[in-house]
Amino acid sequence: MRATIMYQAGDVRIENIPDATIKQPTDAVIRVIRACICGSDLWPYRLKQADGHGQYMGHEAIGRVEAIGGDVRKIKVGDLVIMPFAYSDGSCDFCHEGLHTACSHGGFFGSPDVGGAQAEALRIPQADGTLYPLPVGEDHALMASLLTLSDVMGTGHHAAVVSRVGKGKRAAVIGDGAVGLCGVIAAKRLGAEQIILLGRHPDRIALARQFGATDVVSERGDEAVERIRELTAGQGVHSVLECVGTDQAMATSMGIVRAGGGVGRVGVPHYDVIPQAQPMFYRNVLVGGGPAPVRAYIDELLPDVLEGRIQPGLVFDRTVGLEEVPDGYRAMDAREAIKVMVKP
Amino acid sequence: MRATIMYQAGDVRIENIPDATIKQPTDAVIRVIRACICGSDLWPYRLKQADGHGQYMGHEAIGRVEAIGGDVRKIKVGDLVIMPFAYSDGSCDFCHEGLHTACSHGGFFGSPDVGGAQAEALRIPQADGTLYPLPVGEDHALMASLLTLSDVMGTGHHAAVVSRVGKGKRAAVIGDGAVGLCGVIAAKRLGAEQIILLGRHPDRIALARQFGATDVVSERGDEAVERIRELTAGQGVHSVLECVGTDQAMATSMGIVRAGGGVGRVGVPHYDVIPQAQPMFYRNVLVGGGPAPVRAYIDELLPDVLEGRIQPGLVFDRTVGLEEVPDGYRAMDAREAIKVMVKP
Repeated sequence: MRATIMYQAGDVRIENIPDATIKQPTDAVIRVIRACICGSDLWPYRLKQADGHGQYMGHEAIGRVEAIGGDVRKIKVGDLVIMPFAYSDGSCDFCHEGLHTACSHGGFFGSPDVGGAQAEALRIPQADGTLYPLPVGEDHALMASLLTLSDVMGTGHHAAVVSRVGKGKRAAVIGDGAVGLCGVIAAKRLGAEQIILLGRHPDRIALARQFGATDVVSERGDEAVERIRELTAGQGVHSVLECVGTDQAMATSMGIVRAGGGVGRVGVPHYDVIPQAQPMFYRNVLVGGGPAPVRAYIDELLPDVLEGRIQPGLVFDRTVGLEEVPDGYRAMDAREAIKVMVKP
Repeated sequence: MRATIMYQAGDVRIENIPDATIKQPTDAVIRVIRACICGSDLWPYRLKQADGHGQYMGHEAIGRVEAIGGDVRKIKVGDLVIMPFAYSDGSCDFCHEGLHTACSHGGFFGSPDVGGAQAEALRIPQADGTLYPLPVGEDHALMASLLTLSDVMGTGHHAAVVSRVGKGKRAAVIGDGAVGLCGVIAAKRLGAEQIILLGRHPDRIALARQFGATDVVSERGDEAVERIRELTAGQGVHSVLECVGTDQAMATSMGIVRAGGGVGRVGVPHYDVIPQAQPMFYRNVLVGGGPAPVRAYIDELLPDVLEGRIQPGLVFDRTVGLEEVPDGYRAMDAREAIKVMVKP
């Protein structure tokens, strides 16, 4: 079967690999119906050193179940399913608490052992806990929005939940990628009154406004902090959705968060420490976040997608076949595309 | 009147200063009935450089209102009141949200402009918002426990709230000072099933067990982390109450917190950054806390004190008159006393 392999920065190839098969009785195999390229895939696309080993890519998918292991009970062959970016058993303490990304028997797609979703098919460990069967067919008009429940919509929601977005509150979203845009949707959905997007790209800004952003700040660093203080009666925002992961983004977060406010980190951090530990203390600021337990959030978000109240699928502005995936990476890296959907 | 002034590390004196008087129409003046020495007072006692200026000391008190300004409406002359360690107007956005320590017109006692509570009397800015009238007389047997509502009990409670202690959860309390001991009370009160105290002093450990600690870990650093992992099925604790404020205490916090757990910081931080930002992210750990809005917590904690369900006043193991306050500092610094009460 065909699959996407990243060899080093800028070197993504579509190659033949052995067909996905059942290895454990708790496995399923899915045929990939839709996959996509994630902003986090751009980190290795920019930084990966050549080490002679390729990395399987892709961790977001909607698939059709083709085979199941002998211990799979809930998932059936033929089901159309959402594949969250992490697999999880659905039965450990962490899964019961809704933190599937800390599952005792879990892990992440896109590793040598598990494989990636930018491929024709994929083995799914812990199929019963991982996969979420959909009540719709694969031609459903909402397929793009449903696909975002595998990562970016759930991740934006996580940033909003962790940073305690609530009714009538002020929120700022750092980052105008797909996760940041879904963060705008999540902030609006949870009742934020003011939603400030920090971003610079006209097409993304337009989409953010469509999703509910009330203000846009295109300055950076201290200028951005000053501008947001102007927009918030000098106080800053109750909630910062940090959807980038750089030290600059964290410094800005600390500069714009209101006393008593929260910073929800969902950008994969490329820094080692949280700065400003003393001002953070004296202002009672909370910092949290991490890999979103998107599996837990599907129950809450799915009805809003199915009934059209939110349209996160609008973040996809390009669709490619599997053989064109390398060009999809190039387009996202060049910011020609917000998010690329893959139809293998 | 007599008051406590700190000139430099180890140099605390009781001196005559001008009598406390009303300066603003929103002020009150209280006669100090009980005050105390705080663990945070030991930081300047150990570190303050001589600069020719003395620092007024003391930020916890129960007092009798002696005078009020023309705009004071709720507080009356003769009221017996709790004086929280921060003053606050009770009417700004932050006070309405319960974060009185970020009050737009607030500040902290023990500054040149406001004065300290280790004194015969004290001017109280924003008296209506700051002071909490008590429904009991000053000979009441619970005076010691009521005094803790001015700081340490509310502060321990804040650490527990921020770190999300809840029914059936595991908590660890770093620090066996008065705040840590009150943190044990708070964790027990909020339903924690396992409460691990990190401390080394037999008298404090005994009191912690009386307050509800189920386990005691006297190791430090990596050994403490390993011991707590053994005590928690390898997972760590849901909630860390960080009641010390050193970088070592933060490193330990990060080592013992469970995935998805929280660290509530109430020890005044003597470090500049929060370490381990990447493991913290991948494990979805939350860090929060700061100066506790103890004014907001009195409503919740007072009934438990008055009805004897909690006895935080047991942290006081020595009582001194005002002239003996310097010896009280010495005793707390030498760990001869857990917490010293002052009866001026």
